[in-house]
Amino acid sequence: MDKMLLDGALSAVNVGVESFAATLAGQGVAALQLDWRPPADGDAAVGWALARLAGDRADPDCAGSLIDAANALAARRMIEAQPVLVDVILHARDVWPDMERTLLHAGAPIAWPDMCGPMQGAMIGAVLYEGWAKTQDEARALLAAGGVRFGSCHDRAAVGPMSGVISPSMPLFAVRNETNGNYAYSNMSEGTGKVLRFGANSSEVLDRLRWIEGVLAPGLKIALAAIPGGIELKPIQSQALLMGDEVHSRNSAATSLFFAAIAVPLVASEIERQSVRQILDFIGANSQFFLNLSMACCKATMDAAHGVEGSSIVTAMSRNGVTTAIRVSGLGSRWFEAASDMPRGLYFPGFSADDANPDLGDSAIAETAGFGGASLAASPALVQLVGGTVTEAVSYSREMYHITETHNPAMSLPLLDFLGSPTGIDVRKVVDTGIRPVITTGIAHREAGVGQIGAGIVRAPLHCFSSAVLALEERYAEGAA
Amino acid sequence: MDKMLLDGALSAVNVGVESFAATLAGQGVAALQLDWRPPADGDAAVGWALARLAGDRADPDCAGSLIDAANALAARRMIEAQPVLVDVILHARDVWPDMERTLLHAGAPIAWPDMCGPMQGAMIGAVLYEGWAKTQDEARALLAAGGVRFGSCHDRAAVGPMSGVISPSMPLFAVRNETNGNYAYSNMSEGTGKVLRFGANSSEVLDRLRWIEGVLAPGLKIALAAIPGGIELKPIQSQALLMGDEVHSRNSAATSLFFAAIAVPLVASEIERQSVRQILDFIGANSQFFLNLSMACCKATMDAAHGVEGSSIVTAMSRNGVTTAIRVSGLGSRWFEAASDMPRGLYFPGFSADDANPDLGDSAIAETAGFGGASLAASPALVQLVGGTVTEAVSYSREMYHITETHNPAMSLPLLDFLGSPTGIDVRKVVDTGIRPVITTGIAHREAGVGQIGAGIVRAPLHCFSSAVLALEERYAEGAA
Repeated sequence: MDKMLLDGALSAVNVGVESFAATLAGQGVAALQLDWRPPADGDAAVGWALARLAGDRADPDCAGSLIDAANALAARRMIEAQPVLVDVILHARDVWPDMERTLLHAGAPIAWPDMCGPMQGAMIGAVLYEGWAKTQDEARALLAAGGVRFGSCHDRAAVGPMSGVISPSMPLFAVRNETNGNYAYSNMSEGTGKVLRFGANSSEVLDRLRWIEGVLAPGLKIALAAIPGGIELKPIQSQALLMGDEVHSRNSAATSLFFAAIAVPLVASEIERQSVRQILDFIGANSQFFLNLSMACCKATMDAAHGVEGSSIVTAMSRNGVTTAIRVSGLGSRWFEAASDMPRGLYFPGFSADDANPDLGDSAIAETAGFGGASLAASPALVQLVGGTVTEAVSYSREMYHITETHNPAMSLPLLDFLGSPTGIDVRKVVDTGIRPVITTGIAHREAGVGQIGAGIVRAPLHCFSSAVLALEERYAEGAA
Repeated sequence: MDKMLLDGALSAVNVGVESFAATLAGQGVAALQLDWRPPADGDAAVGWALARLAGDRADPDCAGSLIDAANALAARRMIEAQPVLVDVILHARDVWPDMERTLLHAGAPIAWPDMCGPMQGAMIGAVLYEGWAKTQDEARALLAAGGVRFGSCHDRAAVGPMSGVISPSMPLFAVRNETNGNYAYSNMSEGTGKVLRFGANSSEVLDRLRWIEGVLAPGLKIALAAIPGGIELKPIQSQALLMGDEVHSRNSAATSLFFAAIAVPLVASEIERQSVRQILDFIGANSQFFLNLSMACCKATMDAAHGVEGSSIVTAMSRNGVTTAIRVSGLGSRWFEAASDMPRGLYFPGFSADDANPDLGDSAIAETAGFGGASLAASPALVQLVGGTVTEAVSYSREMYHITETHNPAMSLPLLDFLGSPTGIDVRKVVDTGIRPVITTGIAHREAGVGQIGAGIVRAPLHCFSSAVLALEERYAEGAA
């Protein structure tokens, strides 16, 4: 604690433990409480790792300088990405012929017995949808007996919201980053209510999946083929930020813009009129339809920034319902995992935090790319869904600039006087400041099939970032092998 | 000037002329400059009128109390209005069989020689469109010779942006206020570029008007008939306020929401597929398409609040390109007019304030109903078009609460923590505070047919409100006849 004279009066600045300040205040001493935490939350090994990674910035060859340069490159790849919806793939197995009996899921790899309720329910539904079993019991037995392989969506340049289950027969959006040539994929939104991604697997759910496979996907594929060059997704995201979306938990404007972009080619196509009507009805009734496209757009962006030697930029954040995991540009395909936090937010009538599953889904790829929680300032309307005030929403975005490499000039936040969204989470900065990335998220019921029970805010666990810093030290610090 | 002791130091509060404060500051005296103007801008007659209209509020029968009660009723009618797009009228003459050779226009009545360039150009175009003349010269001669009657849109429960020209063959949107049963009408948006409302009258312009009459209007009429109850416009406006529109100068979100609402019934109809495509193409390419609907919605709302005996609430603000005119609920159909101000804003490349026409159009009905400038806080993105900062946009909305009766709970402004938009401009408050209503507006070139050259902000002239206060005094003050 440091005493000083301010304006001639005895005052104190209190750093850290707040009760000291309270004691001083009780004694009539003016005390300024400084919100400070030690780097790495006081973990000495991680603190030393940060220091060893810093080096002497005057030396262009020191670890800190090399990482800084690598991060600038990774961030530039994010900013320069031009993800375009170029195709609809009618069946996932067309992209990945080696899938066979593989089911992809959100987050880091996880075994059947460890999966959360919604993900197990979704796996059962996917087995029934694929016809690998005839009843739920049969499906469960097959899954428990190891009759199905599992894989992480992210390992196939794919993303899916909530359970994120992608089975071989499911159609996919195909997004190409025109700058780098890399592709990313996502499954298609099923709408709200009883849906596979929340673990529902009734016949109603499976029928909708078959309609998506048989009507929606072929229809969108034909319409898309008539749009020269495809649909650029970044301008939709950019416009949507001016229209109250953060393109993660709110996509009302983005979905409307996509609807308008696809409606005319659908009508102009040879597709049966009744199908066009169904497709427009389906998209129009689901304000989150664009989420899956936003995610694939972000994945195409982040994969371009991945694999930059030396970079400490986070290129994926994802949750399998048990752990939250991150990948770092310069650290290969390794996941840095920690137990997921519980989201804090507002619950639909009849539900409470007791019913909630821990944070779930690949959708945090949005935050990784600078949207969602990082762009919460763009979405005052979202606070009506997730709780809090507009001022808090703006504060969340402001906070994120402390842990990011730069801001994205193409993604401006009106409430921050059109400053670009915070871009490129640096694990070093997260650990140094203790500021964890903010994620806006839907809240799933912890039991399969109940569905969404609320929406809120969650932060990625610090441990993911600390582990990544230790791995960076091992690989890049002075004297490291 | 009032001297006082603040915190033991010699200080001063300066009211009015700012140079006094500057002088004090030069002498090292702290001075607080208070932004104060005398009521009615110092016009003694108007000041006395305000005083006589106030009376003793403890007396429920005094003028002030009676006006307050009338205003509360008028504001309630605004808040309770439920405007619904119920029909498309194929030709204006179907609503007004007495039109014959009448052309309606924006603003208060005005004679041919007094009309501004864009309005004259629009009149010539309307004459050609109607086939009353074959060439521009013939049309001009017919108009100059008094061969066409003119009328104010507002006098027929109608509104039109810019020149606001409605001719007998033009189709109309028909909006019914389900609460009161009254109807309001508007013409249909022609899109941007060379358009009649800015005074263009080439064959391209007339061809588009014929397409609107022959394809757009009949198509929308059929689609609308398939929507039970029609399309409720207030929920679209309300959603749009959460999506960056103030539903006057920005309607991007509202147009998208309308597009989605009409697309499915259009596709489901028997309308030829090529026409459906054209209609969706036309609406989708014009982010201001909803403006005319927003205006008709506001007109249906404000007409319900008109004619409340004793009310000093403004029920119309409109500009014919020469004067700005207002109507007041308790003062019948009389217009209170003053010369229009020049908008201040941003100009498209190649144009400047020298090219601008004075403020023009019926679209200020939006501000009368609490949108546009009054809801500028909802539209941070608009400052990119009209100039200024987001903070200024929020300030404009805040200011409007000083001159309005109440706030509309159905129309919440996210940046004011979801407070309802300022509702019910009270001429007494405008005159008392000197705060003039803020209007967001497109800027027209002063010559016919050049079109929009910018967008900006303008304020309604104080004189309109002062005149209305004098008329209120004459009619309602103690001892008045």
